[in-house]
Amino acid sequence: MRRLLSLLLTATMALTAGAQTARQDIDRNPWLAGSNYVDYDRQLPDFRYTKPPKGYVPFYFSHYGRHGSRWLIGKDDYERVLRPLRKARRQSKLTREGEMTLRRVEEFNKSTRNRLGDLTTVGERQHHGIGRRMTQHFPEIFVKKKGVAIDARSTTVNRCILSMVAECEELMAANPTARIHNDVSDSLQFYLNQQWPDRLRDASRKGREANGRFTRENTHPERLMAVLFNDPQWARDSVDEGSLMRHLFEVVINMQSHDNGYDMLDLFTADEIYDMWRITNAGWYLNYGASPLTDGVMPFSQWNLLTNIIETADTCVALGKTQATLRFGHEVCVMPLACLMELDSCGVQVADLNELDRHWQNYKIYPMGCNIQLIFYRPKRGDGDILVKALLNEREATLPVTPTATPYYYRWKELRAYWLSKLESFR
Amino acid sequence: MRRLLSLLLTATMALTAGAQTARQDIDRNPWLAGSNYVDYDRQLPDFRYTKPPKGYVPFYFSHYGRHGSRWLIGKDDYERVLRPLRKARRQSKLTREGEMTLRRVEEFNKSTRNRLGDLTTVGERQHHGIGRRMTQHFPEIFVKKKGVAIDARSTTVNRCILSMVAECEELMAANPTARIHNDVSDSLQFYLNQQWPDRLRDASRKGREANGRFTRENTHPERLMAVLFNDPQWARDSVDEGSLMRHLFEVVINMQSHDNGYDMLDLFTADEIYDMWRITNAGWYLNYGASPLTDGVMPFSQWNLLTNIIETADTCVALGKTQATLRFGHEVCVMPLACLMELDSCGVQVADLNELDRHWQNYKIYPMGCNIQLIFYRPKRGDGDILVKALLNEREATLPVTPTATPYYYRWKELRAYWLSKLESFR
Repeated sequence: MRRLLSLLLTATMALTAGAQTARQDIDRNPWLAGSNYVDYDRQLPDFRYTKPPKGYVPFYFSHYGRHGSRWLIGKDDYERVLRPLRKARRQSKLTREGEMTLRRVEEFNKSTRNRLGDLTTVGERQHHGIGRRMTQHFPEIFVKKKGVAIDARSTTVNRCILSMVAECEELMAANPTARIHNDVSDSLQFYLNQQWPDRLRDASRKGREANGRFTRENTHPERLMAVLFNDPQWARDSVDEGSLMRHLFEVVINMQSHDNGYDMLDLFTADEIYDMWRITNAGWYLNYGASPLTDGVMPFSQWNLLTNIIETADTCVALGKTQATLRFGHEVCVMPLACLMELDSCGVQVADLNELDRHWQNYKIYPMGCNIQLIFYRPKRGDGDILVKALLNEREATLPVTPTATPYYYRWKELRAYWLSKLESFR
Repeated sequence: MRRLLSLLLTATMALTAGAQTARQDIDRNPWLAGSNYVDYDRQLPDFRYTKPPKGYVPFYFSHYGRHGSRWLIGKDDYERVLRPLRKARRQSKLTREGEMTLRRVEEFNKSTRNRLGDLTTVGERQHHGIGRRMTQHFPEIFVKKKGVAIDARSTTVNRCILSMVAECEELMAANPTARIHNDVSDSLQFYLNQQWPDRLRDASRKGREANGRFTRENTHPERLMAVLFNDPQWARDSVDEGSLMRHLFEVVINMQSHDNGYDMLDLFTADEIYDMWRITNAGWYLNYGASPLTDGVMPFSQWNLLTNIIETADTCVALGKTQATLRFGHEVCVMPLACLMELDSCGVQVADLNELDRHWQNYKIYPMGCNIQLIFYRPKRGDGDILVKALLNEREATLPVTPTATPYYYRWKELRAYWLSKLESFR
C-alpha cells in the first residue's frame, strides 16, 4: 500500500513537473510554441551521450529526417492574414499597431512569391549541422570507414531533397572516400511518405469534433483584435476573429524559419502564445499520435516506413559491413513514427485534450529538421548481441523493451520482435 | 582568285570531312545516334587543355549542366511500343525475333513503374565524374581556395537536383572547407528553364511541316517490320509502321541510360540507325537551333539564362573573389544556349535539312549530362584583361570574338559586349 501510494505520488509529481515544464519551456523560449515550425537549432541538446558497453562499436546507422525550415506552404497562408487587415485599412479601422502589422506582413509577403514551401537558408543550415554532428558523434561509421556505402533517399519534395543535399555534403567533407548513392523517385514514396489507408482516414475523422471544440475553447482573440482594430463592433462583424488570430500566429511564429524574418511575437501575450501552442499540439496529437479519440491507430500510418527500417536493418546486420541508410521526408512521418516506435513517451495515450500538454509536447518531437537516428552496435571481437540506440532529435531516447545494463542501449533482437509484433497486431 | 579557290576547296573539304565524320562517328559508336539520350561517358574527350597565358589564374567558374541519363519520360513511351507487339502476339503475327523483342521490352518495362523521368545510376555516375574532373582541372578554384563560396541551383525537376547533388558531393570531397549554398525554387525557373515567349512559339510552328516531311522521308520501316512480324500485309494494315520503328528505336537507344538495360541495337541496320539519328538531329535543330526555317530565333529562348550568366559574372568579376556558380537543368536549355553563345559552330545556319548532318551534330552538344563551363582568368599580379575560356561537354570551344594569342582564351570584355549586343538585337 505504501509502495502504491509512493508510486502514485511519484507519477503525480512527474505529471505536475511535466505540466510546469511545457509552460515554462514556452515562457522561456516562445518560439517553441511554433510546433512543426520550431527552428531545430533553437533547442539543441547537450550532446553528452552514454558510452556503449565496453567492446561495442557502432557499425550501422539508420535515419529518417524531416526537411529543414521552410516558407509557409499554402497559397493562401499569407493572403488570408493580409485580406482582413487590408480591408480594415481601406475602412480606416486599423490602429497604429494594426498598420504596422499590415506593413510588416505586406513587406514579408513579397519574399514569398514563388517560394511557398521552399527550404530556407535557416533550414539548409539545420541540416548542415545535423550532418556534421553525425560525423562527429559516429566517426567509426562516417569518418574512419574507407569507402563507406551510404544510401540516401528522399521523398520527391524539393525541400526534402535539399535537406538531403546539405547532410550528404557534410558526409563527403568528413570522408572524401564515402560512396553515396542518392535516389528520389515516385517508386520510393510508398514508404517514405505513405498514403493513409481508409482505416486511418476513418479514425482521423473521429477526432474532428473534439479538435474543433478544443480549438474554439482555447482561442481568445478579443485582446489582440483590440490591438489591431480601432472599432470592436466592426471587427466582430467584419472579421473572423478566431481564424485571423490563429493564421496571424502562424505567420508570426514561422518567422523563425527565415534569416530575414521580423520578430512580431510581442503581438501576443504569453497566455495567448501558450493557447495557440496547445491548440496545435492537440490537433497533431489527434491526427498522428496515439490518441484514444482516434482509436490509438494513427501512428500505424508509418507501417511501411517502420517495416522498411526493420527490413533494411536485417540486410545490413546480416551483411555486417559498416554503412548507413538515410531517408528524408516530412513531419507527418517522423511524428507518428516516433509514436509507433514508442521513443520516450511519444506513444502515450491521453484521452482528455485539456491534460495533453502535461504528457505530450510536440516541439520535442517534430520541429523543422526533426529526425530519428538508430545506431547499431556490435562487439568489436567475438560474438554477442547486436545492440541499438535511438536518438530523437539527437537526444538519447528510451525504447519499449527491457533495457540492458547500459541505459539507452537495447538488444536489437528484442526490439525488432516487439516492433514486428506491434505491426502484426494492426493487420 | 587562287586564294578564293583555295578557301572554297578548304571549305568543301571541311564539309565533306564533316559529312564523313557524322556517319563514321555513328558507325563506330552507334549509341551516339541517341541524340539527347547519349550517355555522356561514352564520348569523353582527352582532357588535354590549352594552358592559360603566362601569369593568368582561374578565379571564377560559371556552369549550366543538364541532368544525367534518365528513364524515358512519357507515360506512353514504353506502352506505345508494347501495344502493337502484344496485339501481334495475340494474333500470332510475331516472328521469333518479334517474340524476343516483346519479351525484352516487357521485362524492361517492369523497371519503369513509377520511375519515368528518374535519374538512373548511369546518370548519377556521369555527374560524379563531371564534378570530380572540375576539381582536377581547376584546383585553384575548387581545391586550393579555403572556404570557397559555391552557389548551386537547379530547376525544380528531381533528376536535375540529383545531378546537382552528385557534383556537389564531389566538390565537398575535394575541399571540405567549401561553402556550398544549394537552392531549388519556382522563383528561379524564369532563367533556369525559361518558358518560350509567343514569338518563339510562332517561329517553331514554321518548322513543323519541314520536320514532318523530313521524318517521313527518312523512315524506312519495311525491313524491320519483316523482322518483327510474319505477315507483311497484316503489319501494313494493323500497325503504324513508321511510328513503331521510331518509338522502338527510342526505347532501344535509351538502354544506354541503364546499368541493367538490354543491348537490342542489332534490331536496326547501320543505315536505319543513321536515318533515325538524322530525323532527331533535324527536329531538334528546327526547334532549338539557329535554323533559317524557324527564323534563326530559337536560341533566343535562353535570353534569361545568358543574361543571368553575364550579370552573375559581372558581380563575381567585380568582387574578385574565387568562387563558382553552378546551374542545373535541361537539354532544351543547354542546346539553344550553346547556339546562342556560338560555341564552336553550334550557331550555324543550314537551310537544307538534307545537308544538316554535315554541319551540325547534336550528340556533340546535348548528350545526357551535357554542360557548358565558362572559366574566368585574371593576371596573378598587376592589371590586365579578364580572360574567359569555354568548355562544351568538357571540350575547349571557340567563341565568336577575336581570339587572343592563346587559342580558346578570349577577352571577357569583348565577349560580354558581343553577347549583350546580340541579345539586344532580339529585343
